[in-house]
Amino acid sequence: MSQRRAKAEPTESRAESSENGPLAIIAGGGTLPLALAAAAAAQGRAVHILGIRGEADAKISRFAHTWLKWGEVGKLFATLDGQGCRDLVIIGSVSRPDLANVRFDFGAIRNLPFLLSLGVGGDDQVLSSVVRFLEAKGYRVYGAGEVAPELLAAEGILGDKAPSPDDRADIETGFRVVSALGRLDVGQAAVVVKGRVLAVEAAEGTDAMLARCAELRKGAPGRRRGLAGVLVKAPKPGQEERVDLPTIGPDTVEQAARAGLAGIAVAAGRVLIADRDATIASAGEHGLFLIGQKLALDQDLRGRT
Amino acid sequence: MSQRRAKAEPTESRAESSENGPLAIIAGGGTLPLALAAAAAAQGRAVHILGIRGEADAKISRFAHTWLKWGEVGKLFATLDGQGCRDLVIIGSVSRPDLANVRFDFGAIRNLPFLLSLGVGGDDQVLSSVVRFLEAKGYRVYGAGEVAPELLAAEGILGDKAPSPDDRADIETGFRVVSALGRLDVGQAAVVVKGRVLAVEAAEGTDAMLARCAELRKGAPGRRRGLAGVLVKAPKPGQEERVDLPTIGPDTVEQAARAGLAGIAVAAGRVLIADRDATIASAGEHGLFLIGQKLALDQDLRGRT
Repeated sequence: MSQRRAKAEPTESRAESSENGPLAIIAGGGTLPLALAAAAAAQGRAVHILGIRGEADAKISRFAHTWLKWGEVGKLFATLDGQGCRDLVIIGSVSRPDLANVRFDFGAIRNLPFLLSLGVGGDDQVLSSVVRFLEAKGYRVYGAGEVAPELLAAEGILGDKAPSPDDRADIETGFRVVSALGRLDVGQAAVVVKGRVLAVEAAEGTDAMLARCAELRKGAPGRRRGLAGVLVKAPKPGQEERVDLPTIGPDTVEQAARAGLAGIAVAAGRVLIADRDATIASAGEHGLFLIGQKLALDQDLRGRT
Repeated sequence: MSQRRAKAEPTESRAESSENGPLAIIAGGGTLPLALAAAAAAQGRAVHILGIRGEADAKISRFAHTWLKWGEVGKLFATLDGQGCRDLVIIGSVSRPDLANVRFDFGAIRNLPFLLSLGVGGDDQVLSSVVRFLEAKGYRVYGAGEVAPELLAAEGILGDKAPSPDDRADIETGFRVVSALGRLDVGQAAVVVKGRVLAVEAAEGTDAMLARCAELRKGAPGRRRGLAGVLVKAPKPGQEERVDLPTIGPDTVEQAARAGLAGIAVAAGRVLIADRDATIASAGEHGLFLIGQKLALDQDLRGRT
């Protein structure tokens, strides 16, 4: 029944080692799926990666794995069941596929009413629906942070630079903006410079937003007075935090530096850091602070004032 | 005392025709200052345009006028007083000047503490401060819509295309987003496509946001099924609506069409339309709807849920 590729990977022997079967990792792009697989393996947990073609890193082949194309819903379930996987994590970046070019397999067609229901609504609604759909089929969906808490931003200053009082004020404003937007299922990030909200993220993603900020600040007088302003990232209030947690990585730091920002603040314990060591090293190199901030219990309420 | 340029314009003779002196129009870019001057003149009101160099249209020379550079605060007051202007309107687009290249005159230096206070905060705080500053000096600041209501978007459908029920849903979502953001002094516009918030405007301006939407929707499957989604513009709740009202014009329609949107919805009576006829004609040409919608009394509250 299993349709996974016949590859003789040394790690594949772990596939049946756990009572619950191997942990299935549905993998999009970036290094996080690999970091998660490594963390699970270090805990002695067998893993099976289901890599989305065109998204997942080729290095997933270091682990037991199967490649899936967008639309291969039948193959997804056949693989999960063939490998005896009941627990799964969805992690990594994905582009919105162009549905016109997706070939749906038979399993997808059987689930067509569900798939069509995904066409409308914000990102968060789509992801919540996917999780409910998988749970209704009897799978348990875990957040990457539940399996490997070390992937989440810790509370406090990461690296060795601290935000100034001005930066702290910008951080507060940023969390208010992200919180207000998040309740409308919009974006997870904003850039605030000296009290002014420079940019708000919606569908374009954090990298595009930061590129815009770099453009907007070109030749701005503040630029000459050194780094200023902050990128703030936090999950949307009430969002399905098991999937699609906001993520930062070395690229985020590079882009923030290019935009002339003084640092990055993320919601502690609720934002993933891809390649933590490289991220902190890059922040140090560019003179940026990096801070994980516990959101106050009233953060949502404050956004409403 | 007057420092206005010695130009023998035929309209200058109107300068002393009104009891309150001529209406002073502090003019940024675009056609709105001209439309306002024409409307006031049609009402028999004398006007004196104070054109900001590098911003205002050269056509202001059709009216009594004085050119000002950024930083010429002393000249501004000398002109207002020399012309006997007590009533003024601030209108038109301005770029944020690079303060490093602005030469401040003596009048600016006398008001330096005030000018420095403008350096921090969102756009709306800056504009409110300017209005309070002018009022404290005894001038009366009017909104363009108070002088010429015909410049504001009326309630109802402009042109001959109406929004579909899907469009109406996107409009509602858009007003909720803009309302939630506005309370944080961020932007005045958002783009919603089939329930998904595609983009939110902050410092980049509406044109840049629409260009981004066009980019994001390139090759998107929805694109092939025709126009979808809406640009929503509304002032920020509690904003100083006498200055800096959101504005749309023919360019906005062009850009919205390029982004594949089905139409544009604005807060009726609270958004300016530059070149109304050309704007409606352009919407008709591109098959876009254009609607002025009265904001519900609870629009702000709804943004909070």
